[in-house]
Amino acid sequence: MTVAVIPIPGLPLVKPGDDLAVLLGDAIEAARVGMKPRDVVAVCQKVVSKAEGAVVRLADVTPSAFAVHLASRTESGKDPRAVEVVLRETQRIVRMDRGHVICETRHGWVCANAGVDESNGVAPEVLTLLPRDADASAAALAERLRARFGVELAVVVTDTFGRPWREGLVEVALGCAGMEPLFDLRGRADLTGRTLHHTIVALADEIAAAAGLVMEKDSGVAAAIVRGVRYTPGQTGAASALVRSAAFDLFR
Amino acid sequence: MTVAVIPIPGLPLVKPGDDLAVLLGDAIEAARVGMKPRDVVAVCQKVVSKAEGAVVRLADVTPSAFAVHLASRTESGKDPRAVEVVLRETQRIVRMDRGHVICETRHGWVCANAGVDESNGVAPEVLTLLPRDADASAAALAERLRARFGVELAVVVTDTFGRPWREGLVEVALGCAGMEPLFDLRGRADLTGRTLHHTIVALADEIAAAAGLVMEKDSGVAAAIVRGVRYTPGQTGAASALVRSAAFDLFR
Repeated sequence: MTVAVIPIPGLPLVKPGDDLAVLLGDAIEAARVGMKPRDVVAVCQKVVSKAEGAVVRLADVTPSAFAVHLASRTESGKDPRAVEVVLRETQRIVRMDRGHVICETRHGWVCANAGVDESNGVAPEVLTLLPRDADASAAALAERLRARFGVELAVVVTDTFGRPWREGLVEVALGCAGMEPLFDLRGRADLTGRTLHHTIVALADEIAAAAGLVMEKDSGVAAAIVRGVRYTPGQTGAASALVRSAAFDLFR
Repeated sequence: MTVAVIPIPGLPLVKPGDDLAVLLGDAIEAARVGMKPRDVVAVCQKVVSKAEGAVVRLADVTPSAFAVHLASRTESGKDPRAVEVVLRETQRIVRMDRGHVICETRHGWVCANAGVDESNGVAPEVLTLLPRDADASAAALAERLRARFGVELAVVVTDTFGRPWREGLVEVALGCAGMEPLFDLRGRADLTGRTLHHTIVALADEIAAAAGLVMEKDSGVAAAIVRGVRYTPGQTGAASALVRSAAFDLFR
Protein backbone atom coordinates (compact mmCIF):
# COMPACT_ATOMS: atom_id res chain seq x y z
CA MET A 1 0.00 0.00 0.00
CA THR A 2 1.25 3.44 -0.91
CA VAL A 3 2.22 5.63 2.02
CA ALA A 4 1.32 9.30 1.67
CA VAL A 5 3.27 11.94 3.55
CA ILE A 6 1.00 14.97 3.60
CA PRO A 7 2.36 18.32 4.78
CA ILE A 8 0.14 20.23 7.19
CA PRO A 9 0.99 23.91 6.77
CA GLY A 10 -0.76 26.72 8.53
CA LEU A 11 0.32 26.23 12.13
CA PRO A 12 0.88 29.72 13.47
CA LEU A 13 4.04 30.58 15.40
CA VAL A 14 3.14 28.79 18.62
CA LYS A 15 3.49 30.59 21.96
CA PRO A 16 3.66 29.24 25.51
CA GLY A 17 0.15 28.52 26.71
CA ASP A 18 -1.33 27.97 23.24
CA ASP A 19 -3.63 24.96 22.92
CA LEU A 20 -1.65 22.97 20.38
CA ALA A 21 -4.34 20.29 19.93
CA VAL A 22 -6.78 22.98 18.75
CA LEU A 23 -4.21 24.71 16.51
CA LEU A 24 -3.13 21.39 14.99
CA GLY A 25 -6.70 20.23 14.46
CA ASP A 26 -7.56 23.55 12.81
CA ALA A 27 -4.51 23.29 10.52
CA ILE A 28 -5.50 19.74 9.55
CA GLU A 29 -9.04 20.87 8.76
CA ALA A 30 -7.75 23.82 6.75
CA ALA A 31 -5.52 21.47 4.74
CA ARG A 32 -8.68 19.64 3.56
CA VAL A 33 -7.00 16.24 3.54
CA GLY A 34 -9.36 14.62 6.01
CA MET A 35 -8.29 12.31 8.81
CA LYS A 36 -8.46 8.60 8.13
CA PRO A 37 -8.31 5.64 10.49
CA ARG A 38 -4.69 4.68 11.27
CA ASP A 39 -3.30 8.02 10.14
CA VAL A 40 -0.15 9.06 11.98
CA VAL A 41 0.08 12.74 12.85
CA ALA A 42 3.70 13.83 13.06
CA VAL A 43 4.44 17.12 14.77
CA CYS A 44 7.83 18.63 15.39
CA GLN A 45 9.09 18.90 18.90
CA LYS A 46 9.61 22.61 18.80
CA VAL A 47 5.95 23.56 18.56
CA VAL A 48 5.17 21.05 21.32
CA SER A 49 7.86 22.54 23.56
CA LYS A 50 6.72 26.07 22.89
CA ALA A 51 3.07 25.31 23.61
CA GLU A 52 4.07 23.55 26.84
CA GLY A 53 6.26 26.45 27.91
CA ALA A 54 9.47 24.39 27.74
CA VAL A 55 11.44 27.54 26.99
CA VAL A 56 14.12 29.49 28.83
CA ARG A 57 14.92 33.19 28.58
CA LEU A 58 18.64 33.82 28.49
CA ALA A 59 18.05 36.89 30.65
CA ASP A 60 16.94 34.58 33.47
CA VAL A 61 20.07 32.40 33.35
CA THR A 62 23.25 32.88 35.35
CA PRO A 63 26.00 30.73 33.88
CA SER A 64 28.17 28.58 36.10
CA ALA A 65 31.96 28.85 35.95
CA PHE A 66 32.01 25.61 33.94
CA ALA A 67 29.57 27.01 31.38
CA VAL A 68 31.69 30.17 31.03
CA HIS A 69 34.77 28.02 30.54
CA LEU A 70 33.11 25.82 27.92
CA ALA A 71 31.67 28.78 26.05
CA SER A 72 35.09 30.43 25.88
CA ARG A 73 36.40 27.36 24.07
CA THR A 74 33.81 27.36 21.28
CA GLU A 75 34.92 28.79 17.96
CA SER A 76 31.68 30.64 17.37
CA GLY A 77 31.82 32.31 20.78
CA LYS A 78 28.71 30.75 22.27
CA ASP A 79 26.72 32.59 24.88
CA PRO A 80 27.72 31.13 28.29
CA ARG A 81 24.09 31.32 29.36
CA ALA A 82 23.08 29.07 26.44
CA VAL A 83 25.79 26.61 27.46
CA GLU A 84 24.45 26.72 31.02
CA VAL A 85 20.97 25.78 29.76
CA VAL A 86 22.46 22.82 27.86
CA LEU A 87 24.25 21.62 31.01
CA ARG A 88 21.05 21.85 33.04
CA GLU A 89 19.29 19.60 30.51
CA THR A 90 22.15 17.09 30.54
CA GLN A 91 22.36 13.89 32.53
CA ARG A 92 25.73 12.89 31.11
CA ILE A 93 28.12 14.34 28.55
CA VAL A 94 28.80 11.59 26.00
CA ARG A 95 31.37 13.49 23.91
CA MET A 96 32.76 16.99 24.11
CA ASP A 97 35.13 18.14 21.41
CA ARG A 98 35.69 20.79 18.73
CA GLY A 99 32.94 23.01 20.08
CA HIS A 100 30.35 20.25 20.07
CA VAL A 101 28.65 18.78 23.11
CA ILE A 102 26.84 15.48 22.65
CA CYS A 103 24.64 14.93 25.67
CA GLU A 104 22.46 12.29 27.22
CA THR A 105 19.32 14.08 28.33
CA ARG A 106 17.18 13.31 31.36
CA HIS A 107 15.02 11.21 29.02
CA GLY A 108 17.97 9.12 27.82
CA TRP A 109 18.09 10.66 24.34
CA VAL A 110 21.61 11.24 23.07
CA CYS A 111 21.87 14.36 20.93
CA ALA A 112 23.78 17.58 20.36
CA ASN A 113 23.30 20.31 22.98
CA ALA A 114 20.78 18.17 24.88
CA GLY A 115 18.16 19.24 22.34
CA VAL A 116 18.35 22.90 23.39
CA ASP A 117 17.63 24.98 20.31
CA GLU A 118 17.97 28.61 19.33
CA SER A 119 16.35 28.53 15.89
CA ASN A 120 12.66 29.27 15.30
CA GLY A 121 12.43 30.31 18.95
CA VAL A 122 9.52 32.14 20.51
CA ALA A 123 11.61 35.32 20.55
CA PRO A 124 15.25 36.30 20.25
CA GLU A 125 17.18 35.30 23.35
CA VAL A 126 14.70 32.53 24.14
CA LEU A 127 15.76 28.89 23.86
CA THR A 128 13.47 25.91 23.48
CA LEU A 129 14.07 22.74 25.50
CA LEU A 130 12.90 19.22 24.69
CA PRO A 131 9.41 18.49 26.04
CA ARG A 132 9.48 17.22 29.61
CA ASP A 133 7.75 13.98 28.52
CA ALA A 134 7.21 13.79 24.76
CA ASP A 135 5.32 10.49 25.07
CA ALA A 136 2.81 12.19 27.35
CA SER A 137 2.64 15.12 24.92
CA ALA A 138 1.93 12.69 22.08
CA ALA A 139 -0.70 10.84 24.12
CA ALA A 140 -2.50 14.06 25.01
CA LEU A 141 -2.52 15.24 21.40
CA ALA A 142 -3.70 11.83 20.18
CA GLU A 143 -6.60 11.82 22.62
CA ARG A 144 -7.76 15.29 21.64
CA LEU A 145 -7.40 14.65 17.89
CA ARG A 146 -9.24 11.32 18.17
CA ALA A 147 -12.08 13.07 19.93
CA ARG A 148 -12.21 15.83 17.33
CA PHE A 149 -11.95 13.69 14.19
CA GLY A 150 -13.62 10.53 15.50
CA VAL A 151 -11.02 8.06 14.18
CA GLU A 152 -8.25 5.95 15.66
CA LEU A 153 -4.90 7.59 14.98
CA ALA A 154 -1.36 7.77 16.27
CA VAL A 155 0.85 10.74 17.06
CA VAL A 156 4.63 10.98 16.74
CA VAL A 157 6.54 13.95 18.14
CA THR A 158 9.69 14.42 16.05
CA ASP A 159 13.03 16.14 16.38
CA THR A 160 16.02 16.63 14.13
CA PHE A 161 19.07 14.66 15.32
CA GLY A 162 22.57 14.10 14.02
CA ARG A 163 24.12 10.63 14.02
CA PRO A 164 27.63 9.29 14.57
CA TRP A 165 29.53 8.34 11.42
CA ARG A 166 27.01 9.89 9.05
CA GLU A 167 26.73 13.44 7.77
CA GLY A 168 23.50 15.39 7.95
CA LEU A 169 20.50 15.40 10.22
CA VAL A 170 17.41 13.21 10.14
CA GLU A 171 14.04 13.50 11.82
CA VAL A 172 13.54 10.96 14.64
CA ALA A 173 10.75 10.11 17.07
CA LEU A 174 10.92 11.63 20.56
CA GLY A 175 7.35 10.88 21.54
CA CYS A 176 4.83 8.34 20.34
CA ALA A 177 1.25 7.40 21.18
CA GLY A 178 -1.34 5.09 19.67
CA MET A 179 1.12 2.79 17.90
CA GLU A 180 3.99 0.49 18.77
CA PRO A 181 7.17 2.41 17.91
CA LEU A 182 9.07 -0.81 17.16
CA PHE A 183 7.85 -3.27 14.54
CA ASP A 184 9.07 -6.70 15.45
CA LEU A 185 9.75 -9.10 12.59
CA ARG A 186 11.60 -11.63 14.74
CA GLY A 187 10.35 -15.14 14.24
CA ARG A 188 8.91 -14.41 10.80
CA ALA A 189 10.45 -16.19 7.87
CA ASP A 190 12.28 -14.35 5.15
CA LEU A 191 11.70 -15.09 1.49
CA THR A 192 13.91 -18.16 1.56
CA GLY A 193 12.25 -19.56 4.66
CA ARG A 194 15.09 -18.56 6.97
CA THR A 195 13.99 -17.01 10.27
CA LEU A 196 14.69 -13.28 10.57
CA HIS A 197 16.62 -13.20 13.82
CA HIS A 198 17.50 -9.61 14.41
CA THR A 199 14.96 -7.56 12.57
CA ILE A 200 13.19 -5.05 14.74
CA VAL A 201 12.31 -2.00 12.69
CA ALA A 202 12.33 1.41 14.36
CA LEU A 203 9.02 2.22 12.72
CA ALA A 204 8.36 5.47 14.58
CA ASP A 205 11.77 6.74 13.48
CA GLU A 206 11.08 5.82 9.84
CA ILE A 207 7.74 7.64 10.09
CA ALA A 208 9.52 10.67 11.57
CA ALA A 209 12.09 10.62 8.75
CA ALA A 210 9.35 10.36 6.15
CA ALA A 211 7.58 13.32 7.76
CA GLY A 212 10.91 15.16 7.64
CA LEU A 213 10.67 15.08 3.84
CA VAL A 214 7.80 17.58 4.00
CA MET A 215 8.50 19.34 7.34
CA GLU A 216 11.21 21.72 6.23
CA LYS A 217 12.62 24.06 8.80
CA ASP A 218 12.60 27.11 6.56
CA SER A 219 9.11 26.60 5.20
CA GLY A 220 7.07 26.69 8.38
CA VAL A 221 5.58 23.23 7.93
CA ALA A 222 5.73 21.84 11.47
CA ALA A 223 3.36 18.90 11.04
CA ALA A 224 2.46 16.16 8.60
CA ILE A 225 0.06 13.28 8.26
CA VAL A 226 1.68 9.96 7.36
CA ARG A 227 -1.07 7.82 5.86
CA GLY A 228 -1.00 4.14 4.99
CA VAL A 229 1.67 2.81 7.37
CA ARG A 230 1.21 -0.76 8.55
CA TYR A 231 1.58 -0.42 12.33
CA THR A 232 0.41 -2.16 15.47
CA PRO A 233 -2.02 0.09 17.33
CA GLY A 234 -1.59 0.21 21.05
CA GLN A 235 -1.62 2.29 24.13
CA THR A 236 1.72 0.87 25.22
CA GLY A 237 3.37 2.68 22.33
CA ALA A 238 5.87 5.16 23.70
CA ALA A 239 9.00 6.42 22.01
CA SER A 240 10.93 5.84 25.23
CA ALA A 241 11.08 2.23 23.98
CA LEU A 242 13.45 3.56 21.32
CA VAL A 243 16.01 4.50 23.97
CA ARG A 244 18.54 1.69 24.12
CA SER A 245 19.27 0.84 27.73
CA ALA A 246 22.85 1.51 28.78
CA ALA A 247 23.34 -2.20 29.56
CA PHE A 248 22.85 -3.11 25.91
CA ASP A 249 24.55 -0.09 24.38
CA LEU A 250 28.07 -0.50 23.03
CA PHE A 251 28.47 3.27 22.65
CA ARG A 252 27.96 4.67 26.16
CA MET B 1 3.57 18.92 -1.71
CA THR B 2 2.53 15.44 -0.64
CA VAL B 3 5.22 12.79 -0.89
CA ALA B 4 4.04 9.37 -2.07
CA VAL B 5 5.97 6.26 -1.12
CA ILE B 6 4.87 3.64 -3.63
CA PRO B 7 5.85 0.00 -3.11
CA ILE B 8 7.18 -1.80 -6.18
CA PRO B 9 6.45 -5.50 -5.67
CA GLY B 10 7.15 -8.19 -8.20
CA LEU B 11 10.92 -8.27 -8.27
CA PRO B 12 11.81 -11.96 -8.58
CA LEU B 13 14.44 -13.52 -6.31
CA VAL B 14 17.49 -11.98 -7.95
CA LYS B 15 20.46 -14.19 -8.87
CA PRO B 16 24.07 -13.29 -9.68
CA GLY B 17 24.27 -12.14 -13.29
CA ASP B 18 20.65 -10.98 -13.52
CA ASP B 19 20.14 -7.63 -15.23
CA LEU B 20 18.63 -5.69 -12.33
CA ALA B 21 17.84 -2.61 -14.43
CA VAL B 22 15.59 -4.72 -16.65
CA LEU B 23 13.97 -6.56 -13.74
CA LEU B 24 13.38 -3.31 -11.84
CA GLY B 25 12.00 -1.55 -14.92
CA ASP B 26 9.66 -4.48 -15.58
CA ALA B 27 8.46 -4.43 -11.97
CA ILE B 28 7.82 -0.68 -12.17
CA GLU B 29 5.84 -1.13 -15.38
CA ALA B 30 3.87 -3.98 -13.88
CA ALA B 31 3.00 -1.81 -10.87
CA ARG B 32 1.26 0.62 -13.25
CA VAL B 33 2.27 3.69 -11.28
CA GLY B 34 4.16 5.35 -14.11
CA MET B 35 7.46 7.13 -13.70
CA LYS B 36 7.36 10.87 -13.24
CA PRO B 37 10.11 13.48 -13.49
CA ARG B 38 12.05 13.78 -10.20
CA ASP B 39 10.88 10.39 -8.93
CA VAL B 40 13.37 8.67 -6.65
CA VAL B 41 13.67 4.91 -7.14
CA ALA B 42 14.76 3.24 -3.91
CA VAL B 43 16.08 -0.29 -4.14
CA CYS B 44 17.42 -2.38 -1.32
CA GLN B 45 21.08 -3.27 -1.27
CA LYS B 46 20.54 -6.98 -1.20
CA VAL B 47 19.09 -7.29 -4.68
CA VAL B 48 21.87 -5.02 -5.98
CA SER B 49 24.52 -7.16 -4.32
CA LYS B 50 23.00 -10.37 -5.61
CA ALA B 51 22.72 -9.13 -9.18
CA GLU B 52 26.34 -7.92 -9.05
CA GLY B 53 27.54 -11.23 -7.65
CA ALA B 54 28.66 -9.72 -4.35
CA VAL B 55 28.04 -13.01 -2.61
CA VAL B 56 30.26 -15.57 -0.89
CA ARG B 57 29.70 -19.31 -0.51
CA LEU B 58 30.60 -20.52 2.97
CA ALA B 59 32.00 -23.68 1.39
CA ASP B 60 34.68 -21.55 -0.28
CA VAL B 61 35.83 -19.89 2.96
CA THR B 62 38.60 -21.08 5.28
CA PRO B 63 38.32 -19.24 8.58
CA SER B 64 41.41 -17.71 10.17
CA ALA B 65 42.33 -18.55 13.75
CA PHE B 66 40.95 -15.16 14.81
CA ALA B 67 37.60 -15.87 13.15
CA VAL B 68 37.41 -19.25 14.89
CA HIS B 69 38.18 -17.58 18.21
CA LEU B 70 35.56 -14.85 17.71
CA ALA B 71 32.91 -17.34 16.59
CA SER B 72 33.49 -19.46 19.69
CA ARG B 73 32.65 -16.45 21.84
CA THR B 74 29.24 -15.73 20.25
CA GLU B 75 26.22 -16.91 22.19
CA SER B 76 24.43 -18.18 19.11
CA GLY B 77 27.41 -20.24 17.99
CA LYS B 78 28.16 -18.38 14.78
CA ASP B 79 29.77 -20.18 11.87
CA PRO B 80 33.51 -19.28 11.90
CA ARG B 81 33.41 -19.02 8.12
CA ALA B 82 30.71 -16.34 8.35
CA VAL B 83 32.85 -14.45 10.87
CA GLU B 84 35.79 -14.74 8.47
CA VAL B 85 33.72 -13.13 5.71
CA VAL B 86 32.85 -10.26 8.05
CA LEU B 87 36.52 -9.73 8.89
CA ARG B 88 37.46 -9.65 5.20
CA GLU B 89 34.91 -6.88 4.60
CA THR B 90 36.17 -4.90 7.58
CA GLN B 91 38.60 -2.01 7.52
CA ARG B 92 38.42 -1.40 11.27
CA ILE B 93 36.49 -2.91 14.15
CA VAL B 94 34.72 -0.03 15.91
CA ARG B 95 33.21 -2.06 18.77
CA MET B 96 33.26 -5.73 19.61
CA ASP B 97 31.25 -6.93 22.56
CA ARG B 98 28.46 -9.32 23.61
CA GLY B 99 28.58 -11.24 20.35
CA HIS B 100 28.23 -8.10 18.22
CA VAL B 101 30.83 -6.74 15.84
CA ILE B 102 30.37 -3.16 14.67
CA CYS B 103 32.67 -2.62 11.71
CA GLU B 104 33.88 0.13 9.48
CA THR B 105 33.73 -1.23 5.96
CA ARG B 106 36.08 -0.47 3.08
CA HIS B 107 33.57 2.19 2.02
CA GLY B 108 33.62 3.90 5.42
CA TRP B 109 30.14 2.77 6.45
CA VAL B 110 29.89 1.78 10.11
CA CYS B 111 27.46 -1.08 10.66
CA ALA B 112 26.98 -4.48 12.27
CA ASN B 113 28.88 -7.37 10.67
CA ALA B 114 30.26 -5.10 7.94
CA GLY B 115 26.94 -5.45 6.16
CA VAL B 116 27.40 -9.18 5.58
CA ASP B 117 23.96 -10.75 5.61
CA GLU B 118 22.58 -14.26 5.83
CA SER B 119 18.87 -13.54 5.39
CA ASN B 120 17.12 -13.59 2.02
CA GLY B 121 20.31 -15.00 0.52
CA VAL B 122 20.63 -16.50 -2.93
CA ALA B 123 20.81 -19.96 -1.35
CA PRO B 124 21.44 -21.46 2.08
CA GLU B 125 25.10 -21.13 3.03
CA VAL B 126 25.54 -18.13 0.77
CA LEU B 127 26.16 -14.70 2.27
CA THR B 128 25.58 -11.36 0.58
CA LEU B 129 28.15 -8.57 0.90
CA LEU B 130 27.59 -4.85 0.45
CA PRO B 131 27.94 -3.71 -3.17
CA ARG B 132 31.53 -2.90 -4.08
CA ASP B 133 30.50 0.68 -4.98
CA ALA B 134 26.84 1.39 -4.29
CA ASP B 135 27.09 4.88 -5.79
CA ALA B 136 28.23 3.36 -9.06
CA SER B 137 25.43 0.78 -8.81
CA ALA B 138 22.92 3.60 -8.30
CA ALA B 139 24.36 5.59 -11.21
CA ALA B 140 24.17 2.62 -13.56
CA LEU B 141 20.57 1.89 -12.58
CA ALA B 142 19.62 5.57 -12.90
CA GLU B 143 21.06 5.76 -16.41
CA ARG B 144 19.25 2.64 -17.58
CA LEU B 145 15.92 3.66 -16.00
CA ARG B 146 16.17 7.18 -17.44
CA ALA B 147 16.71 5.71 -20.88
CA ARG B 148 13.78 3.34 -20.50
CA PHE B 149 11.25 5.74 -19.03
CA GLY B 150 12.49 8.95 -20.62
CA VAL B 151 12.40 11.11 -17.49
CA GLU B 152 14.93 12.57 -15.09
CA LEU B 153 15.01 10.51 -11.91
CA ALA B 154 17.25 9.62 -9.00
CA VAL B 155 18.18 6.26 -7.51
CA VAL B 156 18.96 5.47 -3.88
CA VAL B 157 20.37 2.09 -2.86
CA THR B 158 19.27 1.37 0.72
CA ASP B 159 20.30 -0.90 3.55
CA THR B 160 18.97 -1.58 7.03
CA PHE B 161 21.30 -0.28 9.76
CA GLY B 162 21.20 -0.14 13.52
CA ARG B 163 22.20 3.02 15.38
CA PRO B 164 23.97 3.72 18.66
CA TRP B 165 21.72 4.71 21.55
CA ARG B 166 18.48 3.87 19.75
CA GLU B 167 16.64 0.57 19.47
CA GLY B 168 15.55 -0.85 16.16
CA LEU B 169 16.81 -0.63 12.61
CA VAL B 170 16.17 2.01 9.98
CA GLU B 171 16.71 2.06 6.24
CA VAL B 172 19.61 4.31 5.20
CA ALA B 173 21.21 5.30 1.89
CA LEU B 174 24.32 3.39 0.77
CA GLY B 175 24.29 4.58 -2.82
CA CYS B 176 22.83 7.60 -4.52
CA ALA B 177 22.71 9.01 -8.05
CA GLY B 178 20.88 11.85 -9.74
CA MET B 179 20.32 13.92 -6.61
CA GLU B 180 22.34 15.62 -3.90
CA PRO B 181 22.16 13.32 -0.86
CA LEU B 182 22.53 16.26 1.53
CA PHE B 183 20.09 19.17 1.49
CA ASP B 184 21.86 22.24 2.74
CA LEU B 185 19.74 24.81 4.55
CA ARG B 186 22.72 26.74 5.90
CA GLY B 187 22.44 30.44 5.27
CA ARG B 188 18.66 30.35 4.93
CA ALA B 189 16.65 32.20 7.50
CA ASP B 190 14.36 30.40 9.89
CA LEU B 191 10.85 31.65 10.57
CA THR B 192 12.06 34.31 12.98
CA GLY B 193 14.70 35.56 10.57
CA ARG B 194 17.58 33.89 12.41
CA THR B 195 20.10 32.17 10.16
CA LEU B 196 19.99 28.37 10.32
CA HIS B 197 23.62 27.61 11.08
CA HIS B 198 23.86 23.88 11.33
CA THR B 199 21.03 22.49 9.31
CA ILE B 200 22.16 20.05 6.65
CA VAL B 201 19.46 17.44 6.13
CA ALA B 202 20.50 13.89 5.22
CA LEU B 203 17.84 13.83 2.53
CA ALA B 204 18.89 10.53 0.95
CA ASP B 205 18.66 8.87 4.38
CA GLU B 206 15.18 10.30 4.95
CA ILE B 207 14.15 9.01 1.53
CA ALA B 208 15.57 5.58 2.39
CA ALA B 209 13.69 5.55 5.71
CA ALA B 210 10.47 6.53 3.98
CA ALA B 211 11.00 3.73 1.46
CA GLY B 212 11.57 1.41 4.43
CA LEU B 213 7.93 1.97 5.39
CA VAL B 214 6.84 -0.05 2.36
CA MET B 215 9.91 -2.27 1.77
CA GLU B 216 9.24 -4.91 4.36
CA LYS B 217 11.72 -7.73 4.62
CA ASP B 218 9.16 -10.47 4.94
CA SER B 219 6.93 -9.27 2.14
CA GLY B 220 9.30 -9.37 -0.79
CA VAL B 221 9.00 -5.66 -1.63
CA ALA B 222 12.60 -4.75 -2.44
CA ALA B 223 11.97 -1.44 -4.20
CA ALA B 224 9.84 1.68 -3.95
CA ILE B 225 9.26 4.92 -5.77
CA VAL B 226 9.41 8.01 -3.59
CA ARG B 227 7.54 10.73 -5.46
CA GLY B 228 7.32 14.43 -4.69
CA VAL B 229 10.54 15.01 -2.77
CA ARG B 230 12.10 18.45 -3.18
CA TYR B 231 15.71 17.64 -4.05
CA THR B 232 18.60 19.16 -5.94
CA PRO B 233 19.28 17.13 -9.08
CA GLY B 234 22.89 16.51 -9.85
CA GLN B 235 25.47 14.12 -11.05
CA THR B 236 27.71 14.89 -8.10
CA GLY B 237 25.19 13.20 -5.82
CA ALA B 238 26.79 10.19 -4.21
CA ALA B 239 25.94 8.64 -0.87
CA SER B 240 29.62 8.51 -0.01
CA ALA B 241 29.06 12.18 0.93
CA LEU B 242 27.05 10.81 3.86
CA VAL B 243 30.15 9.17 5.32
CA ARG B 244 31.50 11.51 7.98
CA SER B 245 35.24 11.83 7.64
CA ALA B 246 37.19 10.49 10.60
CA ALA B 247 38.65 13.96 11.24
CA PHE B 248 35.19 15.33 12.03
CA ASP B 249 33.78 12.27 13.76
CA LEU B 250 33.61 12.27 17.54
CA PHE B 251 32.81 8.56 17.61
CA ARG B 252 35.75 6.88 15.88
